[in-house]
Amino acid sequence: MPERRKWSFLIPAAGDGIRLGLGPKAFLEIAGKTMLARVMANAAAISGDVVVGVPAGDAEAVAAAYPDAAIVAGGGTRQETIEKLLERARHTWVMIHDVARPLCSPALIEAVAEKSIETGAAAAFCPVDVPVAIVEGGRIKAHYGAREARLFQSPLAFRADLLRQAYRDAHAAGRLAQSTVELVVASGYDVRVVEGERTNIKITTDLDLALAQVIAARADDA
Amino acid sequence: MPERRKWSFLIPAAGDGIRLGLGPKAFLEIAGKTMLARVMANAAAISGDVVVGVPAGDAEAVAAAYPDAAIVAGGGTRQETIEKLLERARHTWVMIHDVARPLCSPALIEAVAEKSIETGAAAAFCPVDVPVAIVEGGRIKAHYGAREARLFQSPLAFRADLLRQAYRDAHAAGRLAQSTVELVVASGYDVRVVEGERTNIKITTDLDLALAQVIAARADDA
Repeated sequence: MPERRKWSFLIPAAGDGIRLGLGPKAFLEIAGKTMLARVMANAAAISGDVVVGVPAGDAEAVAAAYPDAAIVAGGGTRQETIEKLLERARHTWVMIHDVARPLCSPALIEAVAEKSIETGAAAAFCPVDVPVAIVEGGRIKAHYGAREARLFQSPLAFRADLLRQAYRDAHAAGRLAQSTVELVVASGYDVRVVEGERTNIKITTDLDLALAQVIAARADDA
Repeated sequence: MPERRKWSFLIPAAGDGIRLGLGPKAFLEIAGKTMLARVMANAAAISGDVVVGVPAGDAEAVAAAYPDAAIVAGGGTRQETIEKLLERARHTWVMIHDVARPLCSPALIEAVAEKSIETGAAAAFCPVDVPVAIVEGGRIKAHYGAREARLFQSPLAFRADLLRQAYRDAHAAGRLAQSTVELVVASGYDVRVVEGERTNIKITTDLDLALAQVIAARADDA
């Protein structure tokens, strides 16, 4: 039986939630529990080394509320924030899960962790019901059926040294990516795909927030 | 000034709503109004020739409820249903809008109609917040940034003869497609892209239905 891997759990939560206009997402409540509290509970189930990136002005208050976690002031971009969290990770495997997805199930976190052992990299991807078009200048450049298309989701799980190498490569190439998976793929690593959850939504707009309240009320009732 | 185009409006509503398990979607209520009634109201705003495909057993009842529309028993697949509706279209331009998207705004319908004049084909596509992966055998074959990726949406607008040609080509090639846009693109036509609406959701699961109630309540209040 392989040795049980130890995980550092990185939570980028430094966004200012500009699109929602309700302050930093970390402190928004979904069915009576903040988004950060929900993700912290997920983290604690798998990791004894939780590192959270928050808006600089909130670091002290969050540190007081979560004395067992390492609290770091976030960077200027999500990519920078994750790099700062990675510097503080103590274990040889890291999981990343955004505070903007507070409704992820513990089962999905386990599944992504499990899958990552194959190549050192795995992530959740969400199924879609409709085909996807790749659009350029108002025209369809390519299109893919719903069966083969997936939306990026999280959590992500990596061998820490692999993720550190992807960041070094990104610096060398001056690469900026919306997603950590893109950075890792760009470095030539094979990111394994885990089927995500439709309820693990990313909360960006007030409509997402309304949907999240519905999902959370159902899950908390169950 | 160009002659005002006349539109036939085709509504595929023959699905049995198996995934939802609440009977045919057409008759599901969103905030007190059936999905079919909502799409019929959209259709009436642009078209005097509305053709609806419903489950065979419901054709008579729907015809009684909507005496001004042509009611047709749907085919075995969405592709077949639309072809049957197309046979009944009286005008030289057709718009297609699925009953599963009852929350489309009249403005989006107008925008797609307007755009279609450029090449004879246009459709709504929904923006995404995250990148898209193309997956094969559990591995990422390609990935695209959120900026260039779009989810297929509706309405669709076509010159009727162009759409009829796409169907003839599909028969000749034995082509089955999830979406009408795929058929039209496969025939070599240039489908113009119109920015869709996040609220114009496709109702497939009970979670979609819950979200639809939230969206409809807001829109009906506005």
